[in-house]
Amino acid sequence: MLQLYIGNKNYSSWSMRPWVLLRQAGIAFEEVPVRFDGFDANSQFKRRLKAVSPAGKVPVLVDGSLTIWDSLAIAEYLAETHPDKRLWPEDRAARAHARCVTAEMHSGFSALRSHCSMNIEARLPEVGAILWRDQAGVRADVQRLVEMWGELLAKYGGPMLFGQFSIADAFYAPVCMRLSTYGLPVPEAIAAYVQRVQQLPGVKAWIDGALAEHDFREFEEPYRLAPTR
Amino acid sequence: MLQLYIGNKNYSSWSMRPWVLLRQAGIAFEEVPVRFDGFDANSQFKRRLKAVSPAGKVPVLVDGSLTIWDSLAIAEYLAETHPDKRLWPEDRAARAHARCVTAEMHSGFSALRSHCSMNIEARLPEVGAILWRDQAGVRADVQRLVEMWGELLAKYGGPMLFGQFSIADAFYAPVCMRLSTYGLPVPEAIAAYVQRVQQLPGVKAWIDGALAEHDFREFEEPYRLAPTR
Repeated sequence: MLQLYIGNKNYSSWSMRPWVLLRQAGIAFEEVPVRFDGFDANSQFKRRLKAVSPAGKVPVLVDGSLTIWDSLAIAEYLAETHPDKRLWPEDRAARAHARCVTAEMHSGFSALRSHCSMNIEARLPEVGAILWRDQAGVRADVQRLVEMWGELLAKYGGPMLFGQFSIADAFYAPVCMRLSTYGLPVPEAIAAYVQRVQQLPGVKAWIDGALAEHDFREFEEPYRLAPTR
Repeated sequence: MLQLYIGNKNYSSWSMRPWVLLRQAGIAFEEVPVRFDGFDANSQFKRRLKAVSPAGKVPVLVDGSLTIWDSLAIAEYLAETHPDKRLWPEDRAARAHARCVTAEMHSGFSALRSHCSMNIEARLPEVGAILWRDQAGVRADVQRLVEMWGELLAKYGGPMLFGQFSIADAFYAPVCMRLSTYGLPVPEAIAAYVQRVQQLPGVKAWIDGALAEHDFREFEEPYRLAPTR
């Protein structure tokens, strides 16, 4: 069976993407959690990951003797090996655009990613309001999201970015979590998409897992001294 | 005919990747150069790009009514539309690994990219020596390259990363240029790969274009006050 190595569900946005994709598409897999205990070479996390993957990062998909260590390469591999699941849109032009927005997430949105790290169990609207006031990069990233999602939802008619669920939605699922945690302001139609993503069974299952962890990791908590609850 | 929007050849590493891919694969295309004059919203560059692409960045591939605005999505689109060119390796496992290393380039190597920006006409070995001494991130990125390339060249037998030329080599071509410009130390087998990449006709053609530009852009020159020659 496929094995997916993941980090802490509350924090690991990169792990969330292929996990949600597999779960939402109904592809059977075994989850291999590797707890975050730091990211230096001697951490348990790095040592365990380095034993399976040359890049030493999560996520890693293992299919028999084949190891795939990048989230986008994992998505392409699953799309190739499970054509019946239609993980990319069937139309060639839509598929090209789905790859554009997915790759844009994969390499971009650096201000949002660095200032608003994923933290599913936290509620940080005051931090979000300060970031929104002070960080032009965060505002620009959110503006790009609003434009992109708005265009795609209008063009393909929703409920997901390209009509039905695709790799693109899986890649933006952690962004939806960040918008909620930090209470960043978005138009109603965009907030409705965020809600729909969070109600997908595959996303709900990840959120439930994150909320059940209760594993406060200080190095992933730039804005909290202790768990909120 | 396909149109590829690109920035200055001397500086634009992202533009170089799909251009080299198209040229090396022998796929006909028209090049649309958009000169870098700054990256704020009012620059000529941003205004021209925004008119064709929502992300406002190079490269952009235009195929009739279809616009593809990310380098990796462009590569996937070309692989789909030109299966005879074998832009990805044919073997499924090799293809999965080629996508891993390509995606790893697409989202990673941030220290190398930020400290050693591409500058084909420059020779900056002293800057490189200082960066090598002071920047652990640069050393770690080069170490990862050396490991990755070494493994792939051994596994697939060279001369390119996966035997014959593929998207992965096109994506690492700008990295080869950086290693030369900054004179970063790599083992002999890796230096030989860097040489082989720079001798590919598609890469040579890009280098020739870069050397013919003579278009010194201060905002792309953290280490020079004026052209060397």
